[in-house]
Amino acid sequence: MSEQTITVTLATEKKPKPDPSKLEFGKVFTDHMFMMDYTVENGWHNAQILPYQPITLDPASVIFHYGQAVFEGMKAYLTAEDKVLLFRPEKNMERLNKSNDRLCIPEIDEEFALDALKQLINVDREWIPTGEGTSLYIRPFVISTQPFLGVAASISYKFMILLSPVGSYYKEGVKPVKIFVENEYVRAVAGGTGSAKTAGNYASSLKAQQIATQKGYSQVLWLDGVEKKYIEEVGAMNVFFKIGDEVVTPVLNGSILEGVTRRSVLDLLKHWNVPVVERKISVEEIFEASKNGELKEAFGTGTAAVISPIGEFLWNETSITLNNGETGELAKKIYDTLTNIQNGREEDPFGWTVEV
Amino acid sequence: MSEQTITVTLATEKKPKPDPSKLEFGKVFTDHMFMMDYTVENGWHNAQILPYQPITLDPASVIFHYGQAVFEGMKAYLTAEDKVLLFRPEKNMERLNKSNDRLCIPEIDEEFALDALKQLINVDREWIPTGEGTSLYIRPFVISTQPFLGVAASISYKFMILLSPVGSYYKEGVKPVKIFVENEYVRAVAGGTGSAKTAGNYASSLKAQQIATQKGYSQVLWLDGVEKKYIEEVGAMNVFFKIGDEVVTPVLNGSILEGVTRRSVLDLLKHWNVPVVERKISVEEIFEASKNGELKEAFGTGTAAVISPIGEFLWNETSITLNNGETGELAKKIYDTLTNIQNGREEDPFGWTVEV
Repeated sequence: MSEQTITVTLATEKKPKPDPSKLEFGKVFTDHMFMMDYTVENGWHNAQILPYQPITLDPASVIFHYGQAVFEGMKAYLTAEDKVLLFRPEKNMERLNKSNDRLCIPEIDEEFALDALKQLINVDREWIPTGEGTSLYIRPFVISTQPFLGVAASISYKFMILLSPVGSYYKEGVKPVKIFVENEYVRAVAGGTGSAKTAGNYASSLKAQQIATQKGYSQVLWLDGVEKKYIEEVGAMNVFFKIGDEVVTPVLNGSILEGVTRRSVLDLLKHWNVPVVERKISVEEIFEASKNGELKEAFGTGTAAVISPIGEFLWNETSITLNNGETGELAKKIYDTLTNIQNGREEDPFGWTVEV
Repeated sequence: MSEQTITVTLATEKKPKPDPSKLEFGKVFTDHMFMMDYTVENGWHNAQILPYQPITLDPASVIFHYGQAVFEGMKAYLTAEDKVLLFRPEKNMERLNKSNDRLCIPEIDEEFALDALKQLINVDREWIPTGEGTSLYIRPFVISTQPFLGVAASISYKFMILLSPVGSYYKEGVKPVKIFVENEYVRAVAGGTGSAKTAGNYASSLKAQQIATQKGYSQVLWLDGVEKKYIEEVGAMNVFFKIGDEVVTPVLNGSILEGVTRRSVLDLLKHWNVPVVERKISVEEIFEASKNGELKEAFGTGTAAVISPIGEFLWNETSITLNNGETGELAKKIYDTLTNIQNGREEDPFGWTVEV
């Protein structure tokens, strides 16, 4: 499959580029997209870069009924030297195939997908925004296209990549968020799809998020589905706590998504000789640590925000404030280091960045 | 909303009808479909019956990324007196809105949706197959269409209804199936989406089903996600057991779908004065009951198969055979009664059928 070529059809009309200072997340898309088809007879084939355009599907397509779809989220950054950098893209392609496997979607050649992504970025290179904190968000995804209502894995698919220029996640600098500890709704349970990036996981999360928003909280803290006691994720991010001098994050247990930013934070902390451990963490422990003055910081990690400091948790009727609601020192240091590496402003001792 | 009219555009060319003796499930669709749009400004609007055709969507539509979609499954039957009957359709429309609520999809006027369905069936009435065991399968579904990659409920949707002539589920009469008790993968957990008919629930189920099929079993028995001890559903059906003289079915616990056929079987058994109880049932209890000779029958219930008798369970390394692998007397009696009511061959003392 790596041998196949990509047909390129350029857009005859180019769209106006958005004002980089007014970029929102995921609403504007570049002039082109990547698309590849899968059929049982031909495997993955028909790879093409083509003008961004609507797709036409039979209304009986599996995706519309059984949600057999997975995705990834990545970013490309334009450096001061006019180089385009990706951040650990091979990790995302690897995870895409893990997600594919969980949903019975045929494997994609990771190297070929990465090549295709690079070609697509080169075609739309002028869309990469240049303002502070901006980047080109990358959305690879796979959808099931067979028109068949039987509950079975589709026999045809589309793998696509969209590009979207995005602004800084923090319009006014990194700012701590308020988190609602969710006691009723559950994101995932071991044996389910929580460790894969499936479309359905995100649909399931909307209700709790909506309720949290109504209550004035910006994200939900998900607890485990079995005992509703242990911390899993925060919103669509992994979560870290600094208790005393030690940093802790929930250990991957089959229902937590293995975030690329999570992995990178762990590596960075070890590199800095900061004590860090992956283990089960109960929400009770966090509230106890807060009471004892041991809870120094908490932050979410993910591709969109990179690091999202947490200023408050509400659990049942009790709320705790962290670091006086200010961004913690460690969160700030990690955010600066990661974004500096991603943007090529700081040396990358890990070999994480990949030039397009 | 009930006040709105439905624009009807008839197909100029009609497709050939399939041979009723060779009908498969969910592969052939009628000449028309129903479609209605939702926007925040206009609510549900633009109701139309139009020729069955592909739909065109932005590749950034929420459905492709976050699987925000729900569906229903129903059937229409043509009676010997040439009447068209639906079976408890108001129950499906009610459940559609429960599913909508779980996934933050705006409510649909149930009465209007049922009217729309009746109109659509009338337009494609000649597609209802007439052979023994055949029917017109009805697939109402809602998909999220906003082109936006933020994880949030879509602000635009399509509600559609497709019709598909289907054959008898049992080509050679009702035949017991072999069931694999699933110990690793989990369908749903309380606090998740198990009690709603969401697209993602079905994507999650594919892997376990694929493994069971490879092992020669036709469906999976899902256990609870917390203790992996209690029985939830079988494949995409609810499940009943006859132990001694009593019929038992798992009690609705928040992770089990409330099947319309399940409800009807409960009503029918009560009507017949057969002792029936909804409660927690462990898989261990079932295997014990088999050992003691108390386990008389087991069967799944759902719209597609109506009643699906179970001939064998495999749990870890142990398998048990029920009723010598033959269809049980009770399963047969329920199947005959329900299908006779559905097809208008027997009096409907419950008022379940609705004439189109």
